[in-house]
Amino acid sequence: MTKLVQNAAGRMVPDAINGAQAVPYQGVGKFRPSGRKAAPPIRTCSDYPPDGNKVIESLKAALQRAGLRDGMTISTHHHLRNGDHVANAVFAAAAGLGVKDLVWFPSASFPVHEPQIGHLESGVLHHIEGSMNGPLGDYCTAGRMRGMAVLRSHGGRWQAIQDGEIHIDIAVIAAPTADPFGNATGDRGPTACGLLGFALADSLYADHVIVVTDNLVPFPCIPWQIQGNNVDQVVVMDSIGDAAKIVSGTTQITKSPDRLLIAELTARFCDEAGIVQDGFSFQAGAGGTALSFALFLRDLMRERKIKARFVRGGSTQYLVDMLEEGLTDYILDGQTFDLEGVRSMRENPGHVNTSPFTSYNWHGKGNFASLLDVVVLGATEVDVDFNANVVTHSDGRLLHGIGGWQNCLASRCTILPVPSFRDRIPVLVDKVTTLCGPGELIDVIVTERGIAINPLRQDLLAKLRGSSLPVRDIRELKAEVEEIVGGPPAPPALGEKVVAAIKWVDGTVIDCVREVKG
Amino acid sequence: MTKLVQNAAGRMVPDAINGAQAVPYQGVGKFRPSGRKAAPPIRTCSDYPPDGNKVIESLKAALQRAGLRDGMTISTHHHLRNGDHVANAVFAAAAGLGVKDLVWFPSASFPVHEPQIGHLESGVLHHIEGSMNGPLGDYCTAGRMRGMAVLRSHGGRWQAIQDGEIHIDIAVIAAPTADPFGNATGDRGPTACGLLGFALADSLYADHVIVVTDNLVPFPCIPWQIQGNNVDQVVVMDSIGDAAKIVSGTTQITKSPDRLLIAELTARFCDEAGIVQDGFSFQAGAGGTALSFALFLRDLMRERKIKARFVRGGSTQYLVDMLEEGLTDYILDGQTFDLEGVRSMRENPGHVNTSPFTSYNWHGKGNFASLLDVVVLGATEVDVDFNANVVTHSDGRLLHGIGGWQNCLASRCTILPVPSFRDRIPVLVDKVTTLCGPGELIDVIVTERGIAINPLRQDLLAKLRGSSLPVRDIRELKAEVEEIVGGPPAPPALGEKVVAAIKWVDGTVIDCVREVKG
Repeated sequence: MTKLVQNAAGRMVPDAINGAQAVPYQGVGKFRPSGRKAAPPIRTCSDYPPDGNKVIESLKAALQRAGLRDGMTISTHHHLRNGDHVANAVFAAAAGLGVKDLVWFPSASFPVHEPQIGHLESGVLHHIEGSMNGPLGDYCTAGRMRGMAVLRSHGGRWQAIQDGEIHIDIAVIAAPTADPFGNATGDRGPTACGLLGFALADSLYADHVIVVTDNLVPFPCIPWQIQGNNVDQVVVMDSIGDAAKIVSGTTQITKSPDRLLIAELTARFCDEAGIVQDGFSFQAGAGGTALSFALFLRDLMRERKIKARFVRGGSTQYLVDMLEEGLTDYILDGQTFDLEGVRSMRENPGHVNTSPFTSYNWHGKGNFASLLDVVVLGATEVDVDFNANVVTHSDGRLLHGIGGWQNCLASRCTILPVPSFRDRIPVLVDKVTTLCGPGELIDVIVTERGIAINPLRQDLLAKLRGSSLPVRDIRELKAEVEEIVGGPPAPPALGEKVVAAIKWVDGTVIDCVREVKG
Repeated sequence: MTKLVQNAAGRMVPDAINGAQAVPYQGVGKFRPSGRKAAPPIRTCSDYPPDGNKVIESLKAALQRAGLRDGMTISTHHHLRNGDHVANAVFAAAAGLGVKDLVWFPSASFPVHEPQIGHLESGVLHHIEGSMNGPLGDYCTAGRMRGMAVLRSHGGRWQAIQDGEIHIDIAVIAAPTADPFGNATGDRGPTACGLLGFALADSLYADHVIVVTDNLVPFPCIPWQIQGNNVDQVVVMDSIGDAAKIVSGTTQITKSPDRLLIAELTARFCDEAGIVQDGFSFQAGAGGTALSFALFLRDLMRERKIKARFVRGGSTQYLVDMLEEGLTDYILDGQTFDLEGVRSMRENPGHVNTSPFTSYNWHGKGNFASLLDVVVLGATEVDVDFNANVVTHSDGRLLHGIGGWQNCLASRCTILPVPSFRDRIPVLVDKVTTLCGPGELIDVIVTERGIAINPLRQDLLAKLRGSSLPVRDIRELKAEVEEIVGGPPAPPALGEKVVAAIKWVDGTVIDCVREVKG
């Protein structure tokens, strides 16, 4: 039975995860790391082909040569999103080789990865350390996975690898274009996905690195987002992914009048708070509301002749338009969400490829997230203390990953534009089901019924004094919503078993997820 | 007294260097490293300014904040070549702070760095680990430095840092352009020098990293050749270098008829050996003969409509012309030698910035050097077994650094075009004064009196059979030269004291340099 301890957020969390000791969350900025970074083995050119040709005939052969054996940790990445063919091929090959108890360490998983449920059932996989969307999340919250899942932010994943919390035995990197030496890029090829930044840590720290491509070009593959000098083997597959499904399904402007209102209120808030100034910076996700916010902001910038110094992607055609129109000097992109983003990254030196190291790693010498003037993020639940949840629904089911969400909270102003309820279930609650982000880092909640400013941000409250915007108390908003939908969400039917740990950006455990009954 | 042991090349080398055990050279590809790479301390964003502004008022203040103290190892880099202002400023500041016994670990040193002799004399500096050109080399070979110098190739310097053979306490990186977060680039700014690749290892592995710039730009500095996430502090100086002296003095086509002949013979050899084919690759240095060779090659390529896949820099206007003319797909550049090289790197996505990691690190998963079809290098001496020397003259004086020379020997065909004698001193000798490159890796010697092919390369000898080129035996060439100049070089007047160790690409000791008497 997992022993639970109370952390600094008042949440009961496991003191150990899959047999390794875990540190409970200690508060924002409180945990101090010690020691030195993880260090991969020293290699020698004597063991690699002088002609640079590392191509091997199949994924199975590559895994064998990599020394795949029971209990190893294998990483893959989500650049190909729901179109990814590679992760499934890896575990099919592993199953064919008869290995057991592997740990899958994806940068994120998608519904396309449902076949891993079979491998979890058969014993090929022991557990998944990484975000689980859809069917895998359901499987996990049903309590059926042998090990405990571990969810980390993109920055937390880098931190965990860098700090040696997780040791990757074999990294398998799907690459839209690569050369026989292992140099690889995501910005071109039939399955182009933009960048490969989520695999960068793996390429640096894993014991063994396999690049899998369906577009082999002669050395040198330029740009080399992944450097062949870190790569052991190259595998050529017919197709690493389904190009049509690589583009995210979420990059559509919202048509919902409520969400358009929320987006507009968010943009107007930024304006009245004095955030929208020459040289400012913002980050908005690829969800419908966030995209609409970016368009409202764009109109404001055009009108006032304001130019941003940089905007952060997830890039889409909308951000690309802003770059090409001269509304920003740079896009600092962490993930390309559509083909216009891919094209722009390939062609425009002002559209810059970033990684979780530059953007999000809390255990670095600073990172980009805290340099942002404003960031606009989603949430499944927000409570009256401004704490937020992004991974579970109010019924307890684990259906979403953390992404860069936790990391972005470091920005100068974090805004969560959310509907006040969804499917007649309030989003504003007394206490979030799962704590992902501490309220002290969340500055503003924008709903269709009003804007709640965190009392910790007296500066923002002062700026909005006398505003025509509907600034309201969060408890008042919550009460109003409960009146409409007939009360707070029903408490989830949870069992005792802890099925997933939620890490904070510094590697400590901020909360956990319990088995959902029935 | 230093204990000497015989290494696999038959050279007597010290078994310890400055108190640390040293491994004698074991033969090409024979030494097998073990263990894991060096690992820098884990940091936390809690200790860095959330607004990303790491600017500190002076170099002295930065060194104090970095915890500078007696005995530390400080690194600087030679991107600004003989125009560098930063290394001298570092040790002037260190002297002002009263510290002693520092180790200077430059990527290379130039005559401009002569003031360090004063710091060696006063005790601020203990010794220099790095290439020493001119006055510092003279100082070293006069036996006046307290510690033993250590000379490494560019790749060997990466290997030594990566493998933890050398621990850098404080890296000081001169950056022609940087932002307050520490992102830095060499491709623009008043003292633009092209790339900053020689500082990359230092930025990754040093305990503390200081960027010094004279061109501070708002975040983000794009491109970020050095990533601010690895940088602790940023210092702004009025001028980091003298732009006029940054450009190498060596990038002039030779006017000597003998050297033009050597260059032409080298190009013709490449042609007849079948090396010059569509998709081939070559590397030539920035010396007059090498540049002339590149021009002969270019003419040949134009005539035959042959296109290279890539050429390696040191880039100059000549390589840039080839890229712009379409004679090569890429320049993979390790060092920009003139302003045309800088401009091209800044503007042309086909002119690619490399580092000693990608190009030369022997303890990686392969490197670029072995992928080259042909490389053309210089030497101070070559012996009848094709061993070569690049650091000392026949009088024993240490006057040159190794640069990438040792690393380049891994190419498919290594050619040394050298005059058969200089200042009436033969270049062809019985045994090189200092062994820098084992003869088994050196394929061809081209002199104005003929071409000597290493008997190990029977394939090349076969290809040149029946050629009109003057292919000759190396001993015969040597005898001819000795007849002209009146005999072999006078043996140097050497003392017992070992003043410098010469490392091989794998960190073993291939030879050493002794004190020169008088």
